[in-house]
Amino acid sequence: MNAEVIAVGSELLLGQIANTNGQYVSRRLAEAGISVYRHTVVGDNENRLREAAEEAGRRADIVIFSGGLGPTSDDLTRDALARELNRSLIIHPPSLEQIEAFMKDKGKTVSAANERQAYILEGADPFVNRAGLACGMAVTEGDTLYLLLPGPPHELKRMIDADVIPYLSAKGWAAGSIVSRELKFFGIGESALHDSLAVMIEEQKNPTAAPLASEGEVALRLTARGDSVLQAEQMLDGLESKLPPEMKKLIYGKNDVSLAAAAVERLKQTASTVAVAESLTGGGVLEALTSIPGASSVVKGGAVTYQTEAKQNNLEVSEEIIHKHGVISAACAEAMAENVRKMYGASFGIALTGVAGPTPQEGEPAGKFYIGVASADGTTSTQFMEPGSRERVRLMATKHACHQLLKV
Amino acid sequence: MNAEVIAVGSELLLGQIANTNGQYVSRRLAEAGISVYRHTVVGDNENRLREAAEEAGRRADIVIFSGGLGPTSDDLTRDALARELNRSLIIHPPSLEQIEAFMKDKGKTVSAANERQAYILEGADPFVNRAGLACGMAVTEGDTLYLLLPGPPHELKRMIDADVIPYLSAKGWAAGSIVSRELKFFGIGESALHDSLAVMIEEQKNPTAAPLASEGEVALRLTARGDSVLQAEQMLDGLESKLPPEMKKLIYGKNDVSLAAAAVERLKQTASTVAVAESLTGGGVLEALTSIPGASSVVKGGAVTYQTEAKQNNLEVSEEIIHKHGVISAACAEAMAENVRKMYGASFGIALTGVAGPTPQEGEPAGKFYIGVASADGTTSTQFMEPGSRERVRLMATKHACHQLLKV
Repeated sequence: MNAEVIAVGSELLLGQIANTNGQYVSRRLAEAGISVYRHTVVGDNENRLREAAEEAGRRADIVIFSGGLGPTSDDLTRDALARELNRSLIIHPPSLEQIEAFMKDKGKTVSAANERQAYILEGADPFVNRAGLACGMAVTEGDTLYLLLPGPPHELKRMIDADVIPYLSAKGWAAGSIVSRELKFFGIGESALHDSLAVMIEEQKNPTAAPLASEGEVALRLTARGDSVLQAEQMLDGLESKLPPEMKKLIYGKNDVSLAAAAVERLKQTASTVAVAESLTGGGVLEALTSIPGASSVVKGGAVTYQTEAKQNNLEVSEEIIHKHGVISAACAEAMAENVRKMYGASFGIALTGVAGPTPQEGEPAGKFYIGVASADGTTSTQFMEPGSRERVRLMATKHACHQLLKV
Repeated sequence: MNAEVIAVGSELLLGQIANTNGQYVSRRLAEAGISVYRHTVVGDNENRLREAAEEAGRRADIVIFSGGLGPTSDDLTRDALARELNRSLIIHPPSLEQIEAFMKDKGKTVSAANERQAYILEGADPFVNRAGLACGMAVTEGDTLYLLLPGPPHELKRMIDADVIPYLSAKGWAAGSIVSRELKFFGIGESALHDSLAVMIEEQKNPTAAPLASEGEVALRLTARGDSVLQAEQMLDGLESKLPPEMKKLIYGKNDVSLAAAAVERLKQTASTVAVAESLTGGGVLEALTSIPGASSVVKGGAVTYQTEAKQNNLEVSEEIIHKHGVISAACAEAMAENVRKMYGASFGIALTGVAGPTPQEGEPAGKFYIGVASADGTTSTQFMEPGSRERVRLMATKHACHQLLKV
């Protein structure tokens, strides 16, 4: 089985956004054992869209479109493919009902533009959109399966995961032969990981191991191709068990688990709670922790004391600490952690203070920060230096704070 | 003049990375007045690469390749295009010298694999790589110009800016200028925007107007093609001035400005400060505001009172409000806004309370929330309903909170 992905949208050809949909579709198809041979991006132009559809249909078993299903007149994919395949468009009543309910909620009626999103090609299998309004669909013409998916990335992802992969499995096209597993590391860089596991990374053919770097973290992606998911999983287990113990220790989670999710899970397991006092991260740590469903049982809340006077007035950091050590100090981080723990009645208090940048503060460079951890057993703090942009400093400080929670 | 971009690399088709090179090339060509009609991604496979090259060569004036110029055996672009165009490969001495110098620095000699990077097609104009080793090039065959550029994004960007754009200008191909401007709206959906501006969107040819939806927001992208950047800008000004006043009112910013940035800017302009009390957003509003450089002068800080007891203990929301109205209420949002304003000594207090989901809370559905706004003039609140995933509810609540700050 081989596939091609056609992303539709002039904003892609103007360079305003990257084709992340092509990336996501490819990753999920690879996991399902389907090879993607080509990505194409075309603009909101019917002739060029049909030309791309016709070419891909000649070459591929599966042609996947993303985008161009929306309500506006430059959303052309549905109409263009209907004409290309000589099919009528028919209404899909459940999608229309969904659109009507959505509009009614907003006190509006359904316009003709909105209604377009409920049309499917005659003979198509519809995919109801669980994250938006435009109905997706699968249409078979000759030997080729055409899949029409919405362009907004969160809608596309949801439809791929909930509808497309199961649909391909049911047809026996996604024989579940390729399984991947990401082992997520914190506290080691990509090249150090590569050096430690060079033989595994370079010599393994099936399963394979490949390092993947993302901002401040590195993952090792293990991929096995087996006759069944079970067999592939067993191959991955075998490879994982060969990792040296010192590397295993740096793994904090697998696949989509984030540091924040791992931290929330650990708090749940130990029936603990946390309160957070933030300065340079400005709410980012609390935001990350509370983004995890179920965080409400373990996250008490916290204070964002962005200005020095807020640290004094709202977190009771003493005048003495501020004058003697400054706000960018271990003493300040520890006082913030202790006080937020007390104020919010939590098992742990975590506090961050430092310089996000881009300019230095109190003579301290951007990227320098302290994290304090307070518990019933006492208070400690650690100094960090993470150079980079303001965005990166804040992100790394947030990750380090979550990581501290894995160690308590 | 029209162009196509062919990115080469199996890692793109496996979904390991997104085609950001296609995005960058497109943006720079658009600025130079050259339309990009198609992006193609193919893997490290000579036949499929040549097929894509042949097709693009038939359609486009300029075919730009990124990737496949490196030293390894799966770097095929140079060889494949040489065969496709029936050209020999010849050494480019300055590139070879550069490679030799680089290897000497590392105490190594130049291998045959490394030497490949110094070969160019016979008759090509070379682009010495200023950020890496592989030589880029421009080859003209018939009416088509082929540009071969390296795949690593920092090398590609450097070569586009330093070599390709000047090369196209010298040929007189980068004349004319396309300028785009995004008008960012909040409080109107994509289809409503389309309906209000249908004539402008559907009938304008130059400049054009196109709606772009992203999570919870919609933008109108205006694009003009003029003889110069100045002329194109004037065309955009003209189109923008034709927007009806009721639509202009919904514009909160242009291009890369976010709601949070617009809110911080407004606070600066009015010399005001803000403190935020968050519940369902868990720190997201403070995080968004403090992500803007310079936020420290206007954001005092705030409290994240994720649990009910924190609202009572740390924000002094009264027992009476909690028992009579519940925490998901206008009264609670108003009390939180007033108290956080007082506690942090800010001009404005903003507070959010509601249900992020996925499950209902206190009998209230996911997506329902209140935003309270307190100032010296008094306190008000607004009830919102934003259905969707937990992630979307939190994002929309954050955006609405920033939007409230634009109205104070």
